Amino acid sequence: MRATIDFLLHDWLQAEALTARPRFADHSRETWGQVLDTCERIAREKYAPFNRLVDTEEPRVVSDSDGEKVILPQATHEAWKALADSGLLAAAQDYELGGMQLPYTVESAAHAFLSKASVSIVAGMLTSGNANLLMAHGTPAQQRAFATREFSGEWAGTMCLSEPQAGSSLSDIATRAEPDGEDFEGDPLGPRYRLRGNKMWISAGEHELTGNIVHLVLAKIPGPDGKLVPGTRGISLFIVPKRLVDAEGQFTGERNDVALAGLNHKCGWRGTPNTLLNFGEGKFTPGGRAGAIGYRVGAPGQGLAGMFHMMNEARIAIGLAATMLGMAGYEASLAYARERPQGRPMGPAGKDPASPQVPIIQHADVRRMLLAQKSYSEGALALLLYCARLVDEQHTGDAAAAAEARLLLEVLTPVAKSWPSEFGLEANSLAIQIHGGYGYTRDYPVEQYWRDNRLNMIHEGSHGIQALDLLGRKVVMNGGAGLKAVAARMQRTIDAALPVPAGPLPELHEYASALASALSKVGAATQSAWATGVPEEALANAVPYLQAFGHTVLAWTWLDVALAAQRLLAEHRGPEAEALARGKLAACRYFFHYELPRIDAWLAVVASRDDTCRTMQDDWF
Amino acid sequence: MRATIDFLLHDWLQAEALTARPRFADHSRETWGQVLDTCERIAREKYAPFNRLVDTEEPRVVSDSDGEKVILPQATHEAWKALADSGLLAAAQDYELGGMQLPYTVESAAHAFLSKASVSIVAGMLTSGNANLLMAHGTPAQQRAFATREFSGEWAGTMCLSEPQAGSSLSDIATRAEPDGEDFEGDPLGPRYRLRGNKMWISAGEHELTGNIVHLVLAKIPGPDGKLVPGTRGISLFIVPKRLVDAEGQFTGERNDVALAGLNHKCGWRGTPNTLLNFGEGKFTPGGRAGAIGYRVGAPGQGLAGMFHMMNEARIAIGLAATMLGMAGYEASLAYARERPQGRPMGPAGKDPASPQVPIIQHADVRRMLLAQKSYSEGALALLLYCARLVDEQHTGDAAAAAEARLLLEVLTPVAKSWPSEFGLEANSLAIQIHGGYGYTRDYPVEQYWRDNRLNMIHEGSHGIQALDLLGRKVVMNGGAGLKAVAARMQRTIDAALPVPAGPLPELHEYASALASALSKVGAATQSAWATGVPEEALANAVPYLQAFGHTVLAWTWLDVALAAQRLLAEHRGPEAEALARGKLAACRYFFHYELPRIDAWLAVVASRDDTCRTMQDDWF
Repeated sequence: MRATIDFLLHDWLQAEALTARPRFADHSRETWGQVLDTCERIAREKYAPFNRLVDTEEPRVVSDSDGEKVILPQATHEAWKALADSGLLAAAQDYELGGMQLPYTVESAAHAFLSKASVSIVAGMLTSGNANLLMAHGTPAQQRAFATREFSGEWAGTMCLSEPQAGSSLSDIATRAEPDGEDFEGDPLGPRYRLRGNKMWISAGEHELTGNIVHLVLAKIPGPDGKLVPGTRGISLFIVPKRLVDAEGQFTGERNDVALAGLNHKCGWRGTPNTLLNFGEGKFTPGGRAGAIGYRVGAPGQGLAGMFHMMNEARIAIGLAATMLGMAGYEASLAYARERPQGRPMGPAGKDPASPQVPIIQHADVRRMLLAQKSYSEGALALLLYCARLVDEQHTGDAAAAAEARLLLEVLTPVAKSWPSEFGLEANSLAIQIHGGYGYTRDYPVEQYWRDNRLNMIHEGSHGIQALDLLGRKVVMNGGAGLKAVAARMQRTIDAALPVPAGPLPELHEYASALASALSKVGAATQSAWATGVPEEALANAVPYLQAFGHTVLAWTWLDVALAAQRLLAEHRGPEAEALARGKLAACRYFFHYELPRIDAWLAVVASRDDTCRTMQDDWF
Repeated sequence: MRATIDFLLHDWLQAEALTARPRFADHSRETWGQVLDTCERIAREKYAPFNRLVDTEEPRVVSDSDGEKVILPQATHEAWKALADSGLLAAAQDYELGGMQLPYTVESAAHAFLSKASVSIVAGMLTSGNANLLMAHGTPAQQRAFATREFSGEWAGTMCLSEPQAGSSLSDIATRAEPDGEDFEGDPLGPRYRLRGNKMWISAGEHELTGNIVHLVLAKIPGPDGKLVPGTRGISLFIVPKRLVDAEGQFTGERNDVALAGLNHKCGWRGTPNTLLNFGEGKFTPGGRAGAIGYRVGAPGQGLAGMFHMMNEARIAIGLAATMLGMAGYEASLAYARERPQGRPMGPAGKDPASPQVPIIQHADVRRMLLAQKSYSEGALALLLYCARLVDEQHTGDAAAAAEARLLLEVLTPVAKSWPSEFGLEANSLAIQIHGGYGYTRDYPVEQYWRDNRLNMIHEGSHGIQALDLLGRKVVMNGGAGLKAVAARMQRTIDAALPVPAGPLPELHEYASALASALSKVGAATQSAWATGVPEEALANAVPYLQAFGHTVLAWTWLDVALAAQRLLAEHRGPEAEALARGKLAACRYFFHYELPRIDAWLAVVASRDDTCRTMQDDWF
């Protein structure tokens, strides 16, 4: 994978151009290479060897005088320590904060190695995402007291959104936050509240990896009548540390009123504890009374906007996790296919049973399953690095470039989260299939990748939520400005690929036409979906729309990557570079021949506003 | 599901017409109903409550003076006893054998309830399939000694084909069978051999549910030079009991030289032990010396033909198991969707957050996921009952009908095995998705259904093997006679649906046209694939062909079922019948709108003999 990442970063994304910007002036391709080397080494030494261990040694609860705590394997402690010591949690931060001012593009590439080695040991992205949110929305005191300790790895972070009765529907959260005393506004750490409620599905909600855990919690501040405001406008955001700090931000160690109510026993992704937390039920009594102490971040009622800052990062991180699970299965099944002898090629006279068996990679159908995995996982990786590059543009580009990047990210984020979740899972299923019966046993890693990956279509906004976000909001906002921005980028790729090239894959211009046609179908379907202006009609087939849109985005990604591969070939950099480039061109070809044609079936129901599902009656099921 | 089974058996397949045949003369719709009642009750009482138990209490090995044995939960013992006591293992057999002379159609429907309740507790189909093979190919003495004791449930059976180095490639099996003494031909139980070799992936290969286990084993008889003949021609079939019987078939209890070498630890389907067995390694010494005693069934070198008799039954059974896992997930997620409140409908003025949340079944996307599951699982069930009905035709129809049924089954079996395996799994994934995070926990049953179902694309001939069987053999044999027979059946349905009906779903005639078009595309793609006559080119895209063929078969099935639903509606049998019929019509509509259009993408690569995968080079991956 390293060669692919280097190719994508440098030959395709021209990431080195970022070093011309003041923020990244100290960096070079070499320093980035060292960061990637470090992550590869940590992944190889501290993550990969323990991936099966964390699946079998599930988190478990023990009780002691301090309450319930979650015990994790020793390997997870050591992985966390290695991650913190590497400085990667703070890598993107300013030098003053102990950061490296690393571009997000390179940080994402570095994280990819960890996710591939063991997706469920990695909980670091939650912690740095949490701290990043505080850097964007918190006060300097909040940043000093909490964020800096998260960036150093001394403390960890969570995000607490869902409740047992409110998963996708955040407007229904019932956790209450009431002012803590009359002087609640005067706390140097921010307006102080007492929180009471239950939070469900909290990843890394309780563990002993760090000396403290910083929960970022959504809750509602009751109105004068004591009632909670319905809907999302009533939601505010709070910092609720597991253990308290004093007014100067010094750690006191006193337990806040946050109690572990239970662990969820999952199908996979078992290295990360997933918890149900009770806030303010009186298990602990900070300052002498029940109620979890929380410091408000930002204005009342603005909690969701702040949290979405974190959620968008989290969504890209989930997309990367799903992608890397797909990549892990691809690499495992490729190695297996090269070694496992089974069957013989079919000659004109049938098979010669007296000849030795051949490695299964020689069978066309095994190559099909490998190419599918390659096109899914490498294609998704390319898209995610592209999105990361846009994040850098948003933060360090000029005003126009930043605005365009923001627009592009709005539209691409639902795809970057959902597409790898769906097709990374499909890749993992193919990896099992290549292994045959062995792949279905726990002696091989692929069944775990597949189980781990099944989570990704669910958390951080389910497939259905991403689809509503895309078709209901992102492609129609500002008169379709986001969709037009994506279309303009695609058109640039189409224009570059349209002329019949002299290169090794003359059909790139055919793919350019195919992409242009796909883009025009997506545009037409978007319009048809909204032709009546009735949301129920437009959105009834939002998921097939998401799938078609995603496949079109990936086809564009592959065509653009193929153009870079063609340039690489022309440079004659030696046999390894040539094999890499030919592999990318073949994956592009696979995608255009086998995958892109699938969009027609998805778009047909969108464009006709098919009402089969919408009008189905309960008692007919 | 019972109402659907009754509808399919009687309103659609007109199964009662079978009672006009002498073999089934004692039967009636009522007696069949009692058989189904019994199975429903056993499934409800003895299987379903223990499905999670057999997942967590995996089979384990203990050693005692008698060697290694596999311990299963008590619930599995009781389930086996209930199954044996019900007489279902022998249900299809003659009265003289203790059977009920039940049509295979009804037997399959009865088994469906057990598979749905706990697919991995059910190992009965292997035992009756084993005994059925002996009824077809064994001698009367073999049938008496072994098959009758399997039909009664006193003993159980296995099929031993694969070896560690020979999974899909049976021609490479290395188990040797050598004549046992000079008088080996004279044994009343059949020519007696000593077997030596290792058999892998043997389901129910070792357990204590029954007093004995009858292994049916493929092995090669060495030639005069002591060497094994390469290829499948050298394969013979043997009965190798775990414990021996004497020449009169009386049970002696002496251990044969068959030893448990290990259990496979699977991702799912854990209620059935899956074993590695060593034959003839000397762990036991029957008759004073090493070597597993086996009695040849049929002529030397004819073993595979005999085994295929069992394998075709097993493939239909696997298809039914996959279907029932899909159905179990459908029922679980339907119940969940009716109860779980979350979110609100989108009105013209957006959502009203002050209104109560609605059950998620009211969301169009949840209905889409339910309709997809319904169309997959009920459609596959219909296809499998149709195939079962053909088996009855083959056994009890007149010569012409039997010949046609045989031809149809040749072509439909790969679909009946593979299609439910692929789309039943997809259904289970949708069932998880409907449950959200809860579906990913082990507190709900759906994640287990999904894990259990992943096996079905692998065992009893992988997807790739089914695809080669279909495109490489079944649709081209006898000048395409099988394909023509299936096409003729489809044409009959098309002709019935083409006239614009006055019924409640006037678009059935559109679906008839769509099916006709799909059928013609499949025919054209079949021809294009073979246009050059080069197997490597024709078969490179055999799996996409299998998928397209399967979807076309299912579209036909749904259209035919919809015609029956329309007739049912016209009979005005009351609100329940009407809801059932409308549900079938909606599922048909879903299938034609959302699913059948997918075949174009699959067939495109078949028809163009796309060589992307075939020509992909190893070092490009």
